[in-house]
Amino acid sequence: MNTAAIQWLDTIRWDRDGLVPVIAQEAGTGDVLMFAWMNREALQATAERGQAVYWSRSRHKLWHKGEQSGHFQQVHEMRMDCDNDVLLLKVTQAGHAPGEPGIACHTGRHSCFYQRLEGHQWVAVEPVLVDPERFYK
Amino acid sequence: MNTAAIQWLDTIRWDRDGLVPVIAQEAGTGDVLMFAWMNREALQATAERGQAVYWSRSRHKLWHKGEQSGHFQQVHEMRMDCDNDVLLLKVTQAGHAPGEPGIACHTGRHSCFYQRLEGHQWVAVEPVLVDPERFYK
Repeated sequence: MNTAAIQWLDTIRWDRDGLVPVIAQEAGTGDVLMFAWMNREALQATAERGQAVYWSRSRHKLWHKGEQSGHFQQVHEMRMDCDNDVLLLKVTQAGHAPGEPGIACHTGRHSCFYQRLEGHQWVAVEPVLVDPERFYK
Repeated sequence: MNTAAIQWLDTIRWDRDGLVPVIAQEAGTGDVLMFAWMNREALQATAERGQAVYWSRSRHKLWHKGEQSGHFQQVHEMRMDCDNDVLLLKVTQAGHAPGEPGIACHTGRHSCFYQRLEGHQWVAVEPVLVDPERFYK
């Protein structure tokens, strides 16, 4: 790999675990879809594929978003914050079928942020678009 | 404090440092403004004030966003993700003067996510709205 290709990765202030927090935002609607982590390898893979590849902290391995569900994220743009330690991806989120609403959440919802604080309670306020049993076999 | 008021805080899966990642999104535009952290005390303060109060990991203290700059964040809505370990705030971001564009970033920009990956380079693509020297005295 040439120097320029390494430099943009070195600019990032990776945390003590070698990770960076990543926010995925739907390009068309502006909806915040999910939050995850990347290590250096995941970010390189994301840049090369043009699809989001995260680091799964629970499974300790690369996680090509959509590999099981089919709900891939096409990455249009990558942003970095002022402290060089958080990334924002503008994505197109695949859904159950072409033309159907994007499904980012493993619960079958559009966005992972479907619980709203109402008074002192978290309430699920977004519909399940597709039963997860249909995409996790 | 009564039980219900404690439960919504206990629902959150705080990390090993007692923190939760927080995304601030502009309610009107959908722009992702910044990313920060809260501890339990910061989140309680946020809920009570209706303005974002974060935990500063560098200064090890509560950080009432805007306390120095005047760029407060009025919180309209709080969301939690499917794993109960990330928060999303819908906010109105104060700017330099009433009616002017919101300034979330300490560089004087609207959003902290002003660096875009272009090829193998991070490029600042958003304008500085107000010289930070005017609000950090």
